[in-house]
Amino acid sequence: MHKSKIQRFLKKRMVADLHHQAKPGSPPGTLIAHPDLINSKFSMTVMAFDDNEIFEKELADPSELPAILEKYSVTWLDVCGLGNVQMLDEIAQVFNFHPLAMEDVVNIHQRPKVEEYDNFIFAVTRMPQLIDGNLQLEQVSIFWGKNFVVTFQEGEDNGDCLDPLRSRIKHGGRRQKLLRAEYLAYAMLDTIIDSFFPILEFYGNSLDDLEEDAIAQPSTKIVVGIHDYKRDLLILRRAMWSQREAIRSFSETAVFSDPDMKFFIRDCEDHTVQLIDILESYRERTSGLMDIYLSSVSNKMNSAMKVLTMISTIFMPMTVIVGVYGMNFDPLVSPWNMPELGWYYGYPFALALLVITGIGLTAVFWLSGWFKR
Amino acid sequence: MHKSKIQRFLKKRMVADLHHQAKPGSPPGTLIAHPDLINSKFSMTVMAFDDNEIFEKELADPSELPAILEKYSVTWLDVCGLGNVQMLDEIAQVFNFHPLAMEDVVNIHQRPKVEEYDNFIFAVTRMPQLIDGNLQLEQVSIFWGKNFVVTFQEGEDNGDCLDPLRSRIKHGGRRQKLLRAEYLAYAMLDTIIDSFFPILEFYGNSLDDLEEDAIAQPSTKIVVGIHDYKRDLLILRRAMWSQREAIRSFSETAVFSDPDMKFFIRDCEDHTVQLIDILESYRERTSGLMDIYLSSVSNKMNSAMKVLTMISTIFMPMTVIVGVYGMNFDPLVSPWNMPELGWYYGYPFALALLVITGIGLTAVFWLSGWFKR
Amino acid sequence: MHKSKIQRFLKKRMVADLHHQAKPGSPPGTLIAHPDLINSKFSMTVMAFDDNEIFEKELADPSELPAILEKYSVTWLDVCGLGNVQMLDEIAQVFNFHPLAMEDVVNIHQRPKVEEYDNFIFAVTRMPQLIDGNLQLEQVSIFWGKNFVVTFQEGEDNGDCLDPLRSRIKHGGRRQKLLRAEYLAYAMLDTIIDSFFPILEFYGNSLDDLEEDAIAQPSTKIVVGIHDYKRDLLILRRAMWSQREAIRSFSETAVFSDPDMKFFIRDCEDHTVQLIDILESYRERTSGLMDIYLSSVSNKMNSAMKVLTMISTIFMPMTVIVGVYGMNFDPLVSPWNMPELGWYYGYPFALALLVITGIGLTAVFWLSGWFKR
Amino acid sequence: MHKSKIQRFLKKRMVADLHHQAKPGSPPGTLIAHPDLINSKFSMTVMAFDDNEIFEKELADPSELPAILEKYSVTWLDVCGLGNVQMLDEIAQVFNFHPLAMEDVVNIHQRPKVEEYDNFIFAVTRMPQLIDGNLQLEQVSIFWGKNFVVTFQEGEDNGDCLDPLRSRIKHGGRRQKLLRAEYLAYAMLDTIIDSFFPILEFYGNSLDDLEEDAIAQPSTKIVVGIHDYKRDLLILRRAMWSQREAIRSFSETAVFSDPDMKFFIRDCEDHTVQLIDILESYRERTSGLMDIYLSSVSNKMNSAMKVLTMISTIFMPMTVIVGVYGMNFDPLVSPWNMPELGWYYGYPFALALLVITGIGLTAVFWLSGWFKR
Amino acid sequence: MHKSKIQRFLKKRMVADLHHQAKPGSPPGTLIAHPDLINSKFSMTVMAFDDNEIFEKELADPSELPAILEKYSVTWLDVCGLGNVQMLDEIAQVFNFHPLAMEDVVNIHQRPKVEEYDNFIFAVTRMPQLIDGNLQLEQVSIFWGKNFVVTFQEGEDNGDCLDPLRSRIKHGGRRQKLLRAEYLAYAMLDTIIDSFFPILEFYGNSLDDLEEDAIAQPSTKIVVGIHDYKRDLLILRRAMWSQREAIRSFSETAVFSDPDMKFFIRDCEDHTVQLIDILESYRERTSGLMDIYLSSVSNKMNSAMKVLTMISTIFMPMTVIVGVYGMNFDPLVSPWNMPELGWYYGYPFALALLVITGIGLTAVFWLSGWFKR
Repeated sequence: MHKSKIQRFLKKRMVADLHHQAKPGSPPGTLIAHPDLINSKFSMTVMAFDDNEIFEKELADPSELPAILEKYSVTWLDVCGLGNVQMLDEIAQVFNFHPLAMEDVVNIHQRPKVEEYDNFIFAVTRMPQLIDGNLQLEQVSIFWGKNFVVTFQEGEDNGDCLDPLRSRIKHGGRRQKLLRAEYLAYAMLDTIIDSFFPILEFYGNSLDDLEEDAIAQPSTKIVVGIHDYKRDLLILRRAMWSQREAIRSFSETAVFSDPDMKFFIRDCEDHTVQLIDILESYRERTSGLMDIYLSSVSNKMNSAMKVLTMISTIFMPMTVIVGVYGMNFDPLVSPWNMPELGWYYGYPFALALLVITGIGLTAVFWLSGWFKR
Repeated sequence: MHKSKIQRFLKKRMVADLHHQAKPGSPPGTLIAHPDLINSKFSMTVMAFDDNEIFEKELADPSELPAILEKYSVTWLDVCGLGNVQMLDEIAQVFNFHPLAMEDVVNIHQRPKVEEYDNFIFAVTRMPQLIDGNLQLEQVSIFWGKNFVVTFQEGEDNGDCLDPLRSRIKHGGRRQKLLRAEYLAYAMLDTIIDSFFPILEFYGNSLDDLEEDAIAQPSTKIVVGIHDYKRDLLILRRAMWSQREAIRSFSETAVFSDPDMKFFIRDCEDHTVQLIDILESYRERTSGLMDIYLSSVSNKMNSAMKVLTMISTIFMPMTVIVGVYGMNFDPLVSPWNMPELGWYYGYPFALALLVITGIGLTAVFWLSGWFKR
Repeated sequence: MHKSKIQRFLKKRMVADLHHQAKPGSPPGTLIAHPDLINSKFSMTVMAFDDNEIFEKELADPSELPAILEKYSVTWLDVCGLGNVQMLDEIAQVFNFHPLAMEDVVNIHQRPKVEEYDNFIFAVTRMPQLIDGNLQLEQVSIFWGKNFVVTFQEGEDNGDCLDPLRSRIKHGGRRQKLLRAEYLAYAMLDTIIDSFFPILEFYGNSLDDLEEDAIAQPSTKIVVGIHDYKRDLLILRRAMWSQREAIRSFSETAVFSDPDMKFFIRDCEDHTVQLIDILESYRERTSGLMDIYLSSVSNKMNSAMKVLTMISTIFMPMTVIVGVYGMNFDPLVSPWNMPELGWYYGYPFALALLVITGIGLTAVFWLSGWFKR
Repeated sequence: MHKSKIQRFLKKRMVADLHHQAKPGSPPGTLIAHPDLINSKFSMTVMAFDDNEIFEKELADPSELPAILEKYSVTWLDVCGLGNVQMLDEIAQVFNFHPLAMEDVVNIHQRPKVEEYDNFIFAVTRMPQLIDGNLQLEQVSIFWGKNFVVTFQEGEDNGDCLDPLRSRIKHGGRRQKLLRAEYLAYAMLDTIIDSFFPILEFYGNSLDDLEEDAIAQPSTKIVVGIHDYKRDLLILRRAMWSQREAIRSFSETAVFSDPDMKFFIRDCEDHTVQLIDILESYRERTSGLMDIYLSSVSNKMNSAMKVLTMISTIFMPMTVIVGVYGMNFDPLVSPWNMPELGWYYGYPFALALLVITGIGLTAVFWLSGWFKR
Repeated sequence: MHKSKIQRFLKKRMVADLHHQAKPGSPPGTLIAHPDLINSKFSMTVMAFDDNEIFEKELADPSELPAILEKYSVTWLDVCGLGNVQMLDEIAQVFNFHPLAMEDVVNIHQRPKVEEYDNFIFAVTRMPQLIDGNLQLEQVSIFWGKNFVVTFQEGEDNGDCLDPLRSRIKHGGRRQKLLRAEYLAYAMLDTIIDSFFPILEFYGNSLDDLEEDAIAQPSTKIVVGIHDYKRDLLILRRAMWSQREAIRSFSETAVFSDPDMKFFIRDCEDHTVQLIDILESYRERTSGLMDIYLSSVSNKMNSAMKVLTMISTIFMPMTVIVGVYGMNFDPLVSPWNMPELGWYYGYPFALALLVITGIGLTAVFWLSGWFKR
């Protein structure tokens, strides 16, 4: 039986995940490009702005950054593609990022987390995508400090979910708020977390389909489908839980320059809790699916069994009856030997016996409620 | 197989729930009417009172509010229908409500919660309703401050569960207590929580029916019924748990002007705990239902199997016997060849053999306790 | 299938439980008699004592109380029957009990709890009784203050478990301790908790019976029995857990005038923990019962299947053999056509063939270990 | 089906456990001998020592104790047999033990715990024994104070696990440490906890046997065996958990005169954790056993089903074929009527048809992979 | 059925584990060589270095150590083989290690833990190895103080996972960091934890194989495989959990001389969390495997049942039909007696009846969707 595409995809990722880490003994803080990403296209886009002006440019070299940082209130550097280790190193030096944080950027498949360092805050998040019905959790790392936000995205920059944020910066009357780097970083977190909602909509619909199939056509394929589905939920749940934990621990320790930030972070945490709630309800419904499946199967088996039992019970006695009149006892020897054979209505009598037996046994089954249950 | 109405209803709501949130990237605090509610009738009813006087009016415009607020000790504004975003915005400005709180009002399907803002307290609660046997949890948002309570209800104002409160205000000797806005808000919470009890009574009765059916007529329909039932319990339990958490965290941090309030809030929390207890006991009983169902099914299968085995065991040897006397060995060739055929009582002997075989095997089954087990 | 009495009883109580609470919107603190108790006999017994004297009397009117309270060191008022709301109100006024506490007294089916009010402490406990093998948890509410203990019992005063305490007061050399109201209240709690032990003994014995039945005669009745049993355990466990929680939270906050009280309360908590331990072990054993039951069922099915398979495998080939010699090929046409029919020992040969087939196949089953497994 | 001895044994103890407590209403702190122990042999052995001298004697009367206590640095009184309530009372008075603690000594089947009183520390522990393969947890109560350790053992003193400690006192170069009563008490705890290891070795071996049996010969007996096994693990786990809890809470609050004591207590706790780990792994393996058992059973059923289906599919068509040639159509009437009967090779043709049918259907089964699965 | 090698191996270890501890009553802190290790080769390798110089030597006698310790900034002593108790004792005396810590070194199968003593820190870790597909968790004990690190390895020094660290010391530009003993110890912990990743890769691949097998060829062997697999996961999970706990509690209490150490330890903890996450996802997938297996089995049984029912339903009526025309009623006696026998097309009619019956019943099965489900 072929396994679903989702399964294969996940398997590959999980093993890849482990494969990369498989060089124990190398010193911590070493930047080694992930084998899957070594050939991904590399790009650096800077978006800097203050009250009046917006500056946007695709950078070729990180050395242009210090000047930009100085000129504008907030600078957002968006780095896509994690294969170019040398460039990443240069960027880290411009912003003075800790080697361990950079190692986490490069070693994709980190748990979502928020870590505070002395001069910056570092968040790892996962952005969900559905590619051909397969779940992918792309890692987005966000660093922010007083006047900068730096994001590292795993893959190429093909219409990601941060685009709405870009347009808010460009035309927004609400740009005011975004002039604080911490608010910009929060808006990113919020956008990434909200991007889980359409994904969950997809899974909600899949679950409905699975439910219908489990009742209508129980098969091993359904069980594998449930198995795959559960695993996806598990992956999403793990991502959401650590996202939530991260935000909670962060909101408890962080000191914000704007007092309103605490309401925004609380709102963000609320959204993760809501997502977890939905995931949990999917999980509980999924575990009920196996019950439905098993009951459908046992039902079908039961009905096959009932048909078999009825057929056997009706036809076996009939076989014995016809066998009786096929016996070769000699009617000539004695009047006791199969006198029926010589009756005028012997054959109709035998046929009647068969029909009565058949109808009678069927009636017994009917009256005993065998058909109804 | 058709799924129950409950299931369809819930599915629709859940997907709707997700659908609305599905615009990641919009700035937090934006008011967008929920697609399901965009056409719901909008109404604002104000009920203001002090020691002597009660003022009640359906408002056309929020601008009338400041005058009323000033004149009476307590003002209760009850807003029904969340489709008119502009009106909601105006109300928010009158009371100076935070945009994030208003966003939660409009984005129905929030978790119950209590949040303290600087100038008001904001509670999200869920009010259960059974419409055609379908569970609905309507969101009721309550804001209260020093001298006002504002409630936002999801749907139209058709005889909701706050009516008894209205009449207590109108004719009550106990109106005294209600002159404090915080007590009025508490009375609402209490009323909403108590409205879960009749709902649970309905579910208790349903559970009894399911139990009887699972024993009497096990079918896949029962399993789907259990599945649906579990989901409803799950939804109720989630609502109650967050309700409880909200009240507990609120009671721990809030500062009340009336010392007796702490007893009232404790009582309110007690009611949620009792509801959760009942829900938990339903849940445990429900999970036992699958055991009963499975045992009923396997019992039926077992009995079919026993009938089949008995029938086969009794009739197969008989078939062989009649077959033997249907063989064509030539009695004329030798005295060894089927002498029975020429016996005077050959045929009665064969019939007797059949009857003895049948009775004998039935007796074996009887004596071995096959029927009793 | 008829359900056991326990089940019906519990169902009634649970629904009743919900029914009473089903008037959302009434002001908190309102005393409404529980419909089940409205006709129960009402009685007030006072037992007051100090070092030298014991005063015992059935009161007709609460107005006699203040004089008694003043005269004796400790006054114990035992109220049975909760239908007479007016009397309860008068008692509450004498002792100055809070309306919310009185509401909990009247709304039976509260969770066990201990609540501290300004001038008294209020405990709700459950006293287990077995009436015709049905579990009943009667609510006993205990109020105590500096020099009084007031107990409210749900039903009539027919030999309840507080009787041993009464006789300890009357003839005890240990009355000394009981002169403190707090010790008297503790002694009541201790007595009520200890009254769970004989109940658990009953359930321990029932479990042994269920275990034996599950192995010996698996039937749906056993499953329903396990289901009912689990529910009773659940109810007991819930009662014990909240009892324990209540005692623990009380022992952590309470200030006792006698330092030894802390040892007594710790001892009391120990007993609840021991009860919970026993209940937990019953629960785990119960869940193992379903395994035993299912294995017994599948065993029986398996053995039926084996019999069927053996019978079919032995008799079907025999049917074919006898059928062969029942064929009508004409031996006269050619020497190839059924020469056996003309053999001298043709018939014995055919019979021998049958016997050999039967014995041979039985031997195959025997040698392949089919019987042993 | 007979239940295993373990089961009966446990049942007896559990009921006994409950039976004793079944006198609610008696004043707390009353010493009543446990019915099982009322006839056990009573003995008091004192072992007192200081740097130079060891004094060992079987005491007849507790009144000799004060002199010994005064003379030696450490006095260890070992009391066996809990039936002599009067003697126990006298001992309690010598050491000034609290009545509630003494009640716990006499009411065997307490949870392990450590309680601090003003002048002594009181520990309840359980010492495991295997008597004829039955698990017994004998209660050992340890009191210690500044210069004394008193142990109460449930049964007679037949070579218990404290013997190695006695010989360490007598000939040990390490006696130095034991001169502190707190260290002596710790050494006892340590010895008792370590005595669980050989017991777990026994259960580890039993589990291996159960695993082999579940695969080789699945039967209801195995399921009962697993059930009993789980219960024993449960009992051991409960004992270990409360032992651990007790030690942890003790180590957090206790003040030791020797700073090294904290390392020793930590080591002791480590051992309980290790025991719990092993128990947990046994538990998880045990729950997997039911899966293996069920799969073995369904496997056997499946193979029976397959044999039945094959036999039926092969022989039923053959029965029809032989039946066809047993029909009595008259070949003389028309050339269409059973011409085969008159063929020269008619009979061989029919037999060949049978053989081909048999082989053909077997081949179909073979090729469809029916045998392999 | 033979059990897998893994199982046997684990069983041996577990029992060995228990066996060693089985001498309750011996004084704590006694060094007794583990029976499995008593003959393992013993070696001591010292590696001492400072800024300029590296000194490496296989020691014969611990007495050489003090001089080395004094001369170099950091000294790493690596001890392999734990059978030579006397040598271990001498080493302990050189570094002044506590007897309880040394006891834990010798009693292999300790839980991973980190313990702080006055003059050194002591960590027990487990290093995973796959020997012939069998999981082995070798115990590595690490002591470190101001200027030394001492490691004790269970087995011989055959290319263990600390080798990369050795070469980092020898040729590393990053040796600078390693000059602190605490950093060297951390690097060891990090290396050992990272060595779990390739092991998990192996288990990830095994799980994929199990999944495929469970769908393709369900058999009891698969169930045993799942059982063994679960146990290995359990062992790994336990090791990781205590590793994590140990690191967490250590990081909370420890005082580091280098402030960057806290980031390194946090990174180390992150890795354990990631490992636990992967293990948890394997665990959940594994539990889904049993569902897939059971559904495959019931599917096969179901299909066998369906074949049997169809065959019986088709051939039993045919048997009756051929039986009918095999009856011996005498057509000469009356025109009613089996006139078909004398029909010109009697035999073709009978054959047609058979074929029509067969095709008709097959069509019924087809149309009722029996084949499709």
